[in-house]
Amino acid sequence: MNFLVIGGDAAGMSAASRAKRNNPDLNIVVLEKTIDVSYSACGMPYNIADPNREMDDLVVRHARVFREKQGLNLLTGHCVESIDPVKRTVVGTSRHKETFQFGYDKLLIATGGSPIIPDLPGFDLTGVMALKSLNDGRRIKAFIKSNNVKKAVIIGMGYIGLEMCEALRARSIEVEMVKPGPVFLPWMEEEMSNVVREEVESNNVKLNPGRLIQKIEANGQHLKVICSDLTLEADMVLVSMGIKPNSELAAQAGIDLGIKNSIAVDRKLKTSDENIYAAGDCADAYHVVTGKKTWVPLASRANRAGWAVADNICGKEVELPGVAGTAVFKVFNLEVARTGLTMEEAIKSGFDPAKVIIKTRSRAHAHPGASFIRVQMIGDKKTGQLLGAQMVGKEGVAHRINALAVALHSRMTVEEFCQTDLAYAPPFGPVWDPMLTAANQLLKRM
Amino acid sequence: MNFLVIGGDAAGMSAASRAKRNNPDLNIVVLEKTIDVSYSACGMPYNIADPNREMDDLVVRHARVFREKQGLNLLTGHCVESIDPVKRTVVGTSRHKETFQFGYDKLLIATGGSPIIPDLPGFDLTGVMALKSLNDGRRIKAFIKSNNVKKAVIIGMGYIGLEMCEALRARSIEVEMVKPGPVFLPWMEEEMSNVVREEVESNNVKLNPGRLIQKIEANGQHLKVICSDLTLEADMVLVSMGIKPNSELAAQAGIDLGIKNSIAVDRKLKTSDENIYAAGDCADAYHVVTGKKTWVPLASRANRAGWAVADNICGKEVELPGVAGTAVFKVFNLEVARTGLTMEEAIKSGFDPAKVIIKTRSRAHAHPGASFIRVQMIGDKKTGQLLGAQMVGKEGVAHRINALAVALHSRMTVEEFCQTDLAYAPPFGPVWDPMLTAANQLLKRM
Repeated sequence: MNFLVIGGDAAGMSAASRAKRNNPDLNIVVLEKTIDVSYSACGMPYNIADPNREMDDLVVRHARVFREKQGLNLLTGHCVESIDPVKRTVVGTSRHKETFQFGYDKLLIATGGSPIIPDLPGFDLTGVMALKSLNDGRRIKAFIKSNNVKKAVIIGMGYIGLEMCEALRARSIEVEMVKPGPVFLPWMEEEMSNVVREEVESNNVKLNPGRLIQKIEANGQHLKVICSDLTLEADMVLVSMGIKPNSELAAQAGIDLGIKNSIAVDRKLKTSDENIYAAGDCADAYHVVTGKKTWVPLASRANRAGWAVADNICGKEVELPGVAGTAVFKVFNLEVARTGLTMEEAIKSGFDPAKVIIKTRSRAHAHPGASFIRVQMIGDKKTGQLLGAQMVGKEGVAHRINALAVALHSRMTVEEFCQTDLAYAPPFGPVWDPMLTAANQLLKRM
Repeated sequence: MNFLVIGGDAAGMSAASRAKRNNPDLNIVVLEKTIDVSYSACGMPYNIADPNREMDDLVVRHARVFREKQGLNLLTGHCVESIDPVKRTVVGTSRHKETFQFGYDKLLIATGGSPIIPDLPGFDLTGVMALKSLNDGRRIKAFIKSNNVKKAVIIGMGYIGLEMCEALRARSIEVEMVKPGPVFLPWMEEEMSNVVREEVESNNVKLNPGRLIQKIEANGQHLKVICSDLTLEADMVLVSMGIKPNSELAAQAGIDLGIKNSIAVDRKLKTSDENIYAAGDCADAYHVVTGKKTWVPLASRANRAGWAVADNICGKEVELPGVAGTAVFKVFNLEVARTGLTMEEAIKSGFDPAKVIIKTRSRAHAHPGASFIRVQMIGDKKTGQLLGAQMVGKEGVAHRINALAVALHSRMTVEEFCQTDLAYAPPFGPVWDPMLTAANQLLKRM
């Protein structure tokens, strides 16, 4: 059987590697348009923060290792241009400008996502960059060095923008952030997002939400980000306005798209075409709280989905339960985390949500070194079900959120969560874990 | 209705406060033998570590606040000596040597636990102390100061012993630890307990497991702990050999005892006597993994049980699901945590357990500052059920364990846990959370 994989990142390489382990006789070809196949994409801001580290430190496994150790036919620099689902072939062009064609019995589309770049003048200027691929990282790092960047503007205030903001400040680069949306972190209640905002501002970063961006202009070696009522000058502009799924190939082949133009897949990762699977940032997923489709590009989901595709094409049927939308990021000295639904998402999904926000100490009564943790928790008044949570604090946030993620996977009620036996020791939290305090208070509002 | 509570610590005060809120007309009396009713017991080692802090910093709420703000009839210095379950009375003596008698309609026994002190010569000498009550803490702290303690011996190597070891080392007191049992941390696999052992020893603490203790002798201002083949000299001896439930009052009243002589209670916290409840460290509990009785003295359980008693006597029926046996402690730069069953407990409980121990980095590939995390995970081969986990590492252990505790409460299978959507960011862990790596590997052995 010929198993063809388009895209050699998390989902694609997970699928190819596992399929080869499942069945060494499979004829597997992976087509990757870049030269990088396995690297820590999320590590890029931290690498950029340190001028003494090489971007290639982030490579987890080189293409040659997949070829030599795992016997995978991995072709880098191979850009697929179209899929013919009737003939079961894909065609494309290699970086040496040679056209290629491959047939398949089973195809996996794992084309990932791309940064959203607005269709406005000047976003193609030198020094205007987005961070998605390792090559983007190399380019940004080289540009900072060669142009001796002193001032940067980041367009967008999502978590990659905030991580990059911290990275650039670590290199003493002046940073301003700007975005069209009026609210700093729109998925977070103001009481909590203000904590993040203050942390960012206290690191001398100017935030300009609610500014419509009109264009970027070159001004000698400098750049001008021109908004309707504000002009920001910079040596470098980072565009960090989120990503979109790379689903064009699939759409052209007549495959159904789903939420936010991601490729629609069932719980077995199969698309609307019997022989074509999709996995990773290009594909959608089921949300464990709503049971409905969602699009949350996540590394661990990509790996799991790749594995599930490998098992399914090898005859071992696997269905993935879905995602909870768990995420965490660090910005300066804060940890910010979420899982499940926000209030807005809960209402849109047809729940009757109640919410609570609590503020507690991060360590026990009278224990030195405590800071504050804020927890928002959301539950459904009709069923009692836990729907989601968000957290912000200087310590104990990143790993705490996982307890709530597991509770969402288990479809726990808030009342059941209240009874969970969580760990306690004075250096790590109050007797009542902040999550239990939030759950106990939420219960009274339900 | 007369609601009488014996014991004014976590369980007793939780019950009394909640009962008063539930029904302000209740006639509530709390009899506490000491003068302290609400304090952070677990904070005592950290307080002792700092000569500049007062032990009374750990008082969360003074008795007078319960009296004045909550209108509770709280009698401190009142030691109950017997219960008459037929007449429904208790009698005792106050610290002013006056006898008292109270009647009840509903009684809560919340007498807590006491340190285990072996019946050997010399354990009553001045300078030989155990740490359980706030008064114990005051006494130890005062003794260190007044006797200018330079060298201490700790008998026992449980988590309180280890926390005290760290506290004394912080005050530059030389510490040796000794115990009769041959294994350093018997509930932990050697591969992991060795990490803890090395951390303790690298802080210049000598560990002497497997030493039968014969007696303690006074030697002028010093003490000698005499074992069969070893004599340890010290200015102070801490006895930290675990605690036992204070169930004598209940036993004398004919109430059934359960596991490890704790008071047997049902899911409503009711004892074998229709009108008597028990809660806190004196009572047993159901284990969420085995469904069988266990005795795990835990602060959060005591609070929950107190609340449940209050609700039950006020006519709002509440059943507690049980405990997972989740615990965490810090020792020097290590975090050590557990939840659920050990291999030995799993076998004893009739499971057919498989186990795995993994070692991974605490941060993402190439992220600076990473250390190692070790995770043991145990699952049942027959049912696939997750049974327990243990963890040790320098960071990211204390809060991580809670995700597994929630999974145990939900009776998740290892396979289900493998699919949970846990948070990822490079400063906080590898792409695959160590718990997921452990679960994925455990799955292969099941």
